[in-house]
Amino acid sequence: MSRQIIIDTDPGIDDAMAILFAFKAQALTVLGLTTVFGNVSVAQSTRNALSLVELAGVPVAVAEGAATPLQMPARSHPDFVHGKDGFGNIGWPAPRGEADSRSAAQFIVDQVRAAPGKVTLIALGPLTNLALALELDPGIAPLVEEVVMMGGTVHTTGNVSPVAEANIINDPHAADAVFGAAWPVTMIGLDVTHQVLLKAAVLERIQQANPDQGDFLAQAAQCYFNFYRGAMGIDGCFFHDAATIAYALEPSLFGCRHGAIRVATEGLAIGQTMMAPEGRQFAEPGWEDRPMVKVALEVDDVRVLSLFEQTLSGR
Amino acid sequence: MSRQIIIDTDPGIDDAMAILFAFKAQALTVLGLTTVFGNVSVAQSTRNALSLVELAGVPVAVAEGAATPLQMPARSHPDFVHGKDGFGNIGWPAPRGEADSRSAAQFIVDQVRAAPGKVTLIALGPLTNLALALELDPGIAPLVEEVVMMGGTVHTTGNVSPVAEANIINDPHAADAVFGAAWPVTMIGLDVTHQVLLKAAVLERIQQANPDQGDFLAQAAQCYFNFYRGAMGIDGCFFHDAATIAYALEPSLFGCRHGAIRVATEGLAIGQTMMAPEGRQFAEPGWEDRPMVKVALEVDDVRVLSLFEQTLSGR
Repeated sequence: MSRQIIIDTDPGIDDAMAILFAFKAQALTVLGLTTVFGNVSVAQSTRNALSLVELAGVPVAVAEGAATPLQMPARSHPDFVHGKDGFGNIGWPAPRGEADSRSAAQFIVDQVRAAPGKVTLIALGPLTNLALALELDPGIAPLVEEVVMMGGTVHTTGNVSPVAEANIINDPHAADAVFGAAWPVTMIGLDVTHQVLLKAAVLERIQQANPDQGDFLAQAAQCYFNFYRGAMGIDGCFFHDAATIAYALEPSLFGCRHGAIRVATEGLAIGQTMMAPEGRQFAEPGWEDRPMVKVALEVDDVRVLSLFEQTLSGR
Repeated sequence: MSRQIIIDTDPGIDDAMAILFAFKAQALTVLGLTTVFGNVSVAQSTRNALSLVELAGVPVAVAEGAATPLQMPARSHPDFVHGKDGFGNIGWPAPRGEADSRSAAQFIVDQVRAAPGKVTLIALGPLTNLALALELDPGIAPLVEEVVMMGGTVHTTGNVSPVAEANIINDPHAADAVFGAAWPVTMIGLDVTHQVLLKAAVLERIQQANPDQGDFLAQAAQCYFNFYRGAMGIDGCFFHDAATIAYALEPSLFGCRHGAIRVATEGLAIGQTMMAPEGRQFAEPGWEDRPMVKVALEVDDVRVLSLFEQTLSGR
């Protein structure tokens, strides 16, 4: 009874943690990876996704997706966080494999149509590919088991602006479409990921137990740890993308509230995820007739980190 | 060593609580009231302010201010909260007095110039009059002791939209100017006022101890309590405007954080107060070179309510 997932990703160091975590989890079957611009260019995302598939040793398809947002000019890539290569500038060798001939959006549509009600989409980057898949075939929305996405913030301060999180501000129009579609969306945003601090010691223990993948993660994460130490004075890194995999495995580790989410697409608030909690009415229009999104607001950080460590340690 | 204050107000039931609270507080000297549109029209605000001055028995000036926001069309008045007359439709008699001949903005400028460094502005409505006073005489900003304003929300859900509080959305351009000026601003927003629940029993005890003012407050508050019961299922009302007076009397009852505040002036986020916490840097511009606002995020609700009850009970 393994859960079938597609991971849409812009690897990215925390994407790499999430992807290797997912491949190691026996309760998940990764159908393929789809790539998107974000932490790096989409071409680099695709190379990195191919490298991660090879490192995991599970030969699934990698389908390349959007190079730019739906409507806005692309923002610059945060190479001060993930390095120019997305893997912390560790000189990781180029992959041997090649990407699937299909676009990310087409790959998503094909997989969902092939197994209606059975496929979960895990989104770790800007939501452009998911919005493009909806444009390509709007009928897929009710056939998706769940969309679990890392991004946004409701109550917590943002990380690109005081109100905006990076994945959402990278394509606010796509995000607003994804939060408005007829599929069940679970939002794993900064409200929870800023409550989970991954320390270097966890990666060192994974390295002992699972040297191949652990060496890669520990090396790549140095750049990421350096960013957090310099920018925020934190000894460790926030557990962003990999939290989606913890949620897919053990939803009970998260405390969630339902609400309608709209995304600001203009002005100083651009990229903000604004939640009208279920049952609340507001004089200002915009949130009525929107689907309920499941928004994670609480998290059991100790058990999330333990699940990550145990799974990647192969125990 | 009484603190000199001007109360800018749109009474409003919770404005009435704040104003009578301030007049009864021996540590405060009310120099005058200035009125603004908001809970009711500015003409009704002025009538109500004159009534409150008479009820308090302290003959200070009431100067009428803005009838509309700086740039936007006015929103409708929330008569479902405060009643058509702003006093809960209790048929309170018209005041005998008349408003000062000066505008609210001119009154503020005159008082601040007359006592440089000594005057605190307490703002209970849209911030239009304060912005107009800055336009009239930008030099007053560093001469104001403190601006203590009720409005906005940083982390808590809004009350007019999911992200906007009523006073700010009523004139977001004025609010952005007030948060950007060179006076020390303390923001008492929904982050704290939604943590303080005033129950009818408190007003009943005030009514026993101070019948004249207590009768008025208990009568007027019925409409307000009915709104909270119907709209939010709450047995009591949130302690909005009067919290500013509690802060002016006892700042230590509030836990505050400093940050730069910008106000969204367009789109779905309009009226939101967005805080860049002190010391945090963001890739997205807009918050740099703004003054630090003192933002109340925590409150000792029991002691705030006790201060209100004891002061209005005249003990």
